[in-house]
Amino acid sequence: MTELPRITAFTWVPPFARGFVRDIRARWAFEEAGQAYAVDLIDGSYVKSPAHRHFQPFGQIPTYSHAGVEIFESGAIVLHVCETAGVLIPDDPAARIAAIQWLIAALNSVEPYVMALAINDVFEADQPWSATRHPKIVGDLSVRLHDLADALGDRECLEGAAFTVGDLMMVSVLGGLRGTGVLDGFPTLAAYVARGEARPAHRKAMADHLAVYADAAAA
Amino acid sequence: MTELPRITAFTWVPPFARGFVRDIRARWAFEEAGQAYAVDLIDGSYVKSPAHRHFQPFGQIPTYSHAGVEIFESGAIVLHVCETAGVLIPDDPAARIAAIQWLIAALNSVEPYVMALAINDVFEADQPWSATRHPKIVGDLSVRLHDLADALGDRECLEGAAFTVGDLMMVSVLGGLRGTGVLDGFPTLAAYVARGEARPAHRKAMADHLAVYADAAAA
Repeated sequence: MTELPRITAFTWVPPFARGFVRDIRARWAFEEAGQAYAVDLIDGSYVKSPAHRHFQPFGQIPTYSHAGVEIFESGAIVLHVCETAGVLIPDDPAARIAAIQWLIAALNSVEPYVMALAINDVFEADQPWSATRHPKIVGDLSVRLHDLADALGDRECLEGAAFTVGDLMMVSVLGGLRGTGVLDGFPTLAAYVARGEARPAHRKAMADHLAVYADAAAA
Repeated sequence: MTELPRITAFTWVPPFARGFVRDIRARWAFEEAGQAYAVDLIDGSYVKSPAHRHFQPFGQIPTYSHAGVEIFESGAIVLHVCETAGVLIPDDPAARIAAIQWLIAALNSVEPYVMALAINDVFEADQPWSATRHPKIVGDLSVRLHDLADALGDRECLEGAAFTVGDLMMVSVLGGLRGTGVLDGFPTLAAYVARGEARPAHRKAMADHLAVYADAAAA
């Protein structure tokens, strides 16, 4: 019997976080790869324990473990799962690095702006600067989204017709804006996210992620 | 005659930005690879032009162009230069993805906290929240640095003795704290950064970066 790759996810997250946790990215990559996997559910206290930090220094999820590979960072896990399975990464060397470039762009050039909004509006909602600073954050984020919309143009995916790991990560990052209304001003990006999230692999990944908390609520 | 890889950098940056611009990362990777390269210096107006945005949608530098590969994102450029040259990326598959994981961790789990400090203290210095928010930002950053120091332990590099692309990027990201005093509280990280910056390849890259502005000042 072949041992399955294992990832970690949370036993429970507050309702506002459901649908946004990064195990979804790993799950999505597995589904795109047609790769069965196992999930170890861990709680908010174990995730900060030395035992878990041995695998994830920042006390977060997901982690990935399989066949001697132990990694953290959702970006690295997605890359590894897709590289191993040979999916969502073009064979042509120039197209391959272009796809990886978009994965990194999602994580380094877009996500910090998306996270800044969540940090300000959710995690710093009770801070004295939260309301005053909100328009500045939306403004900075909008500049990035405008640039990204220009780059996407009228293409299906960032590099043309083929959906790559770069699109997986960009759709996931932009999906972090769900519920904020920010994408209403960027209809081509909203449609791009909707196309990505309509992929059967994403729907399965999201459903499996949400099912953990539906089960917890029912228990 | 073989054509050299080309990157873009700025003709001029304000004094506070010198030594911090991301062309240093690309230069550093080239130096580690022993790969000669050419630099196209562009100005602050060209970088925002459609002609440049065709290569860099966010209107930034560096970009990389060589042999049909045209990419942006310093993380992707560093990865590509090192992969192409076969340096700073272990051959062993598990060690390889661990190195890439640290590159991504630097860009997604550490740099947003470093940038948040620069944004607040430099770019938002005139905003009403800047002074009030400063301690919160240093606090959040310190949590990450504490975790990172624990992960590094007493090792030379993040994964042991061998310096990888992950270390190159982490040293570069932490180098963004130069002058802030924040690393004073993390002596093992400060020493790790000093070791990385003392590598001949980094010294050459930094000197070549700074020389552009010394020349500009002398002109």
